[in-house]
Amino acid sequence: MADEAPFQFLHNEVIQYIYKSADSGDTEHGGDISTLENMGCRVGQGLVERLTKDTARFKDELDIMKFVCKDFWTCVFKKQIDNLRTNHQGIYVLQDNKFRLLSQLSAGKQYLEHAPKYLAFSCGLVRGALSNLGVKSIVTAEVSVMPACKFQIMIQKM
Amino acid sequence: MADEAPFQFLHNEVIQYIYKSADSGDTEHGGDISTLENMGCRVGQGLVERLTKDTARFKDELDIMKFVCKDFWTCVFKKQIDNLRTNHQGIYVLQDNKFRLLSQLSAGKQYLEHAPKYLAFSCGLVRGALSNLGVKSIVTAEVSVMPACKFQIMIQKM
Repeated sequence: MADEAPFQFLHNEVIQYIYKSADSGDTEHGGDISTLENMGCRVGQGLVERLTKDTARFKDELDIMKFVCKDFWTCVFKKQIDNLRTNHQGIYVLQDNKFRLLSQLSAGKQYLEHAPKYLAFSCGLVRGALSNLGVKSIVTAEVSVMPACKFQIMIQKM
Repeated sequence: MADEAPFQFLHNEVIQYIYKSADSGDTEHGGDISTLENMGCRVGQGLVERLTKDTARFKDELDIMKFVCKDFWTCVFKKQIDNLRTNHQGIYVLQDNKFRLLSQLSAGKQYLEHAPKYLAFSCGLVRGALSNLGVKSIVTAEVSVMPACKFQIMIQKM
């Protein structure tokens, strides 16, 4: 039994609930991507607070990214990020070759259009985690072949 | 780091989102307890399907209850139910002395009134799990001293 299953099932329910609200014309809380992104952000902030309670201070930005790829990702998704790249100018790309929140979708191309709503929460998760570590960022995600997924992080210089 | 933290944080966000929808007058999807309960029910159904994939058939109702108290509870809350009682006439009481979804609330009596919204999802979780095991039930919960909690299951005879 996968440990992340309760989280995964609840995440699916949240997406369905939020998109149902949108269909019913509740615009204020409607199912835009940003609602999910903001939820993820708050969850990311809370998790990082707990996770870093007893850790040493981070050396630099890259050190923070490694923490996100290893400890943070493992906490939420029970696996590490498979590949981390950077241009050393404030852009980082995190690749997860088997992203758990996509693994319940079929791999066919016809489902690619649904991918963004399954990624928005996690983009927020990363943004929230980084923000509580003092790094302001914009996080986007893209899928080319399911269930592999790339998160791009653009650091916003203060 | 507690393994159930991502689930716990997401659960808190869901409560807040649903109750915000209610405040803004969106009655259809408003923050009634039953929205949370139904979400929990679907999550419980999904989890039980995965958890029982490779298990032997259950002997009887009590056997099913023991499965819920042990395997199912551990999957979601990373601990077992502390006490299971029954009147052998279709009523079961499951006691959790340190219920994880209440552990972030202060133990003061003044927060007791907020307990129901933190329990609704889990009542649904149990109902959904049981329903997928062929047991129709009504599940309620009560808290006398936080974070201890009792779930009462009333079996509905078919």
